[in-house]
Amino acid sequence: MRNLYLILLITMICLSCGQKQQNQSSFTSDNMMIRIAEIEIEPNYLDDYIAILKEEAEASVRLEPGVISIYPMFHKENSNQVRILEIYADEEAYKTHLQTPHFKHYKTETENMVKSLRLIDMSAVDEQTMPQIFKKLGK
Amino acid sequence: MRNLYLILLITMICLSCGQKQQNQSSFTSDNMMIRIAEIEIEPNYLDDYIAILKEEAEASVRLEPGVISIYPMFHKENSNQVRILEIYADEEAYKTHLQTPHFKHYKTETENMVKSLRLIDMSAVDEQTMPQIFKKLGK
Repeated sequence: MRNLYLILLITMICLSCGQKQQNQSSFTSDNMMIRIAEIEIEPNYLDDYIAILKEEAEASVRLEPGVISIYPMFHKENSNQVRILEIYADEEAYKTHLQTPHFKHYKTETENMVKSLRLIDMSAVDEQTMPQIFKKLGK
Repeated sequence: MRNLYLILLITMICLSCGQKQQNQSSFTSDNMMIRIAEIEIEPNYLDDYIAILKEEAEASVRLEPGVISIYPMFHKENSNQVRILEIYADEEAYKTHLQTPHFKHYKTETENMVKSLRLIDMSAVDEQTMPQIFKKLGK
């Protein structure tokens, strides 16, 4: 009987750990900084630019807790037109990002490859939507 | 000693369940359909439009397994300029979405509120980035 209690206890602890993992998919978005970067690339440099951007985006999401998303895309019909959905936990996280070696490397190396750059500050229509998207994928 | 083995076995099973939950955050993105919708709204209808869009986006993500993201934003400086990041698991999921009551309701109700609409098909620069973002948030 004592063993049964012990087994039940361990099972409950393990299950509650699993539950915790799942719940952490939700996060508050009150101070989030959302931006769409609209970038036009010099066609000759497109491959080089994409390689450097890919490396920078990957490193930012992997290494920086405050970088929620740096998600780069390009127009299918015109691959010189790059768009990046950037989401930072707050302004502090963005400032920290600007000081990282991977961002500085990207900025210096791509300076002459960028024809135009427009940074557009965005607001989310529904601050609950994103946690739902992440929660859905975490299930 | 037998009890110890039993406890160890249960612990391992529970831990492996937790691991499974976490791994499910990853997903393949080979057939994914990514799009940015650029929408300009008639200023007089902005509040009504936002309310209907919010409802539609929420329902789509919640009810449709193939809708990975319908994430609506608007320009902070000019809230008539709406942008939606739409991600569908594949083309089939998009076609299914077009037939849902919530999408049809959105389309009919907002027809006269939309000044201009541009749907831009996008490619992800790095198909690994998104699973990483979701995985990060799931940890």
